[in-house]
Amino acid sequence: MSQDLTDPSAEPNTDPIAIARELIRCRSVTPDEGGALTYLLRLLTDAGFDAEIVRFSEDGTDDVDNLYARIGSGGPHLTFAGHTDVVPAGEESRWTHPPFAAEIAGGALYGRGAVDMKGAVACFAAAVLDFLKTEGTPKGSISFLITGDEEGVSINGTRKLLAWAKERGERFDHALVGEPTNPNRLGDMIKIGRRGSLSGTITITGKQGHSAYPHLANNPTRGLEKVLHALYAEPLDSGTHEFDPSTLEVTSVDTGNPAFNVIPAQVRLNFNSRFNNLHTAKSLQVLIEKHVASALEGTGLTGRVAFVPNAAEAFLTEAGDIAALLSETIEAETGRKPDYSTTGGTSDARYIKDYCPVIEFGLVGQTMHQVDEHVAIADLKALTAIYRRFLTRYFERFGG
Amino acid sequence: MSQDLTDPSAEPNTDPIAIARELIRCRSVTPDEGGALTYLLRLLTDAGFDAEIVRFSEDGTDDVDNLYARIGSGGPHLTFAGHTDVVPAGEESRWTHPPFAAEIAGGALYGRGAVDMKGAVACFAAAVLDFLKTEGTPKGSISFLITGDEEGVSINGTRKLLAWAKERGERFDHALVGEPTNPNRLGDMIKIGRRGSLSGTITITGKQGHSAYPHLANNPTRGLEKVLHALYAEPLDSGTHEFDPSTLEVTSVDTGNPAFNVIPAQVRLNFNSRFNNLHTAKSLQVLIEKHVASALEGTGLTGRVAFVPNAAEAFLTEAGDIAALLSETIEAETGRKPDYSTTGGTSDARYIKDYCPVIEFGLVGQTMHQVDEHVAIADLKALTAIYRRFLTRYFERFGG
Repeated sequence: MSQDLTDPSAEPNTDPIAIARELIRCRSVTPDEGGALTYLLRLLTDAGFDAEIVRFSEDGTDDVDNLYARIGSGGPHLTFAGHTDVVPAGEESRWTHPPFAAEIAGGALYGRGAVDMKGAVACFAAAVLDFLKTEGTPKGSISFLITGDEEGVSINGTRKLLAWAKERGERFDHALVGEPTNPNRLGDMIKIGRRGSLSGTITITGKQGHSAYPHLANNPTRGLEKVLHALYAEPLDSGTHEFDPSTLEVTSVDTGNPAFNVIPAQVRLNFNSRFNNLHTAKSLQVLIEKHVASALEGTGLTGRVAFVPNAAEAFLTEAGDIAALLSETIEAETGRKPDYSTTGGTSDARYIKDYCPVIEFGLVGQTMHQVDEHVAIADLKALTAIYRRFLTRYFERFGG
Repeated sequence: MSQDLTDPSAEPNTDPIAIARELIRCRSVTPDEGGALTYLLRLLTDAGFDAEIVRFSEDGTDDVDNLYARIGSGGPHLTFAGHTDVVPAGEESRWTHPPFAAEIAGGALYGRGAVDMKGAVACFAAAVLDFLKTEGTPKGSISFLITGDEEGVSINGTRKLLAWAKERGERFDHALVGEPTNPNRLGDMIKIGRRGSLSGTITITGKQGHSAYPHLANNPTRGLEKVLHALYAEPLDSGTHEFDPSTLEVTSVDTGNPAFNVIPAQVRLNFNSRFNNLHTAKSLQVLIEKHVASALEGTGLTGRVAFVPNAAEAFLTEAGDIAALLSETIEAETGRKPDYSTTGGTSDARYIKDYCPVIEFGLVGQTMHQVDEHVAIADLKALTAIYRRFLTRYFERFGG
């Protein structure tokens, strides 16, 4: 049975649950803005922000809207980075609560983006609005870098928004990304860096022929065995103090030969590596090419490796101070001291790290990208409280 | 420049070149009869044969016409088995001489089916017609088992025609198949058996997951490496006096996963084995299932093997006498003593062997299934002479 847990007496613009519901009701599946950015623009403008929707285009990609909003002047400048686009809901009939209805049931708010990451955007907005109401304009600056292209190809999103802001003279001192960083409970984990990601396709070419006459052909699947062995035989490393061991997984092997009696000319395999800062994309490329060449040596087969462009490099934030400040704040609100971690996928932090130190802390990720994505109302309130307390401490600590 | 090398003074029904040209001009791409069987029916009926076109049907397959024709009564009964259907011509513009025009140029007859195997059907027909003209009705029987479904799925072809003939009380003493058996020159090779053929699909199932969290998934491509190793590590055998070593080739490996960052749940591989008479389809199935199970033991992955139905068993003909007779005939006509061989793909001999001893001898296979398939006019004449001489010797040797 649904029940409305929002507080009707609260002013709507400082209530994270009300803001989150407004955002979830927007069908902002990448690359559609769906009204989410327009809603935020109005909310922040009403609170005194200079806010602007910036559209980026590129041949072969969809146009994407992004939002930049700033209040205050000079430093310290804290920017909150996030996204309002969401992955598709899939078959909507499989959801217990419709994905864009923002229904509340059993103490949780349901909907696509509830944790990834309209919920966290709502919490930060609510925290900032409350800060402005109670403490006035900050002694420094607060800004929002919100993209509509984080779940998509990420070409017309945060990367371009950062370059656009820099061009306008914007300088950031610290960035906080609101991605869902907690595996189980709010307060589990702050991300202080991310592994890199490198993908590619290895094409092994032999000689086609009839399977009844294998001596007249050269079967590339024999090379496939050797290449798989070379890729899987030895771990890339055993990890570092901050990073898990690097991984490499073959994600597809394809031939597309329907004839059982024909030895194919080619087989292709796709791989993805998540690597720590003992490697760079370049050093891994060299290693993989070496593995393929050695594996096929003397077989008469040829191997070609094509890497997917724009590999993400591994990084570790230089934000020791701000990470400690956020950690203390989280502990004060939740009683839990968060782990510093670099696990998981990539996020837009990989672009932001080239502009300023960046840390990540948001909601609990368990239901992200799934049917019935939902967030505990208590978590939305707690995250708002953490962000709110952090804002005060941030300007106390880094302010003039 | 085209020239007509046929002898205009020859009666058309004993001239193999004229008969071959008539057959090539019929567009009998499997499963279409294209007029080829109708032409043969008339030719053989005119010469005194009892001939009949028999159509077989089965749900999910095309109807196929076949021809059975017999002359004489009682034994010895020699049946000539072949097919008039051909593989598609592909892009006809790539042919120097149109595939169904039966043009003669440079001493060769061009067209789809010239060597596989309208040419050999024409040679045998010409030889039989000449035999009847010069020696009269044989002291025994001669028959034609001609299918229109050898190059296709072979469901409504020779296998059913044999059962149909048996049902009618037909008994064969020996069979001669006219497939192109010679690798380079007419007289190189008689087939005295064939390797078996077994195909199947191995499905390896693991657990899907995000490539950033491989410990939460179980990547089936790691099992693929082990299965490939198990299949390729040791040869199946080292061959016998009559047979080459058995082979096993993986012909396709497929995953169909377009996402580089998703570990797939499954990978499938197709294989084909050509095996000698040290194995049976059943013993190989057991061996392959054992390999897959051992390879995946302890990995948490599961492997399932599905074999393609109707595997062809390896066989060695019991036709020592008739093979020797044919070998002597070939040597007398060509000066070459043919090798006894069991190499190559399968043929309809795999069905015939269950009814009577069977040997195979036809044209030179080099251009079969290719663009510009062609046969030397001299080879058509020589093969006709071999078949003609063989018929006389056959009834001398096995007749009462």
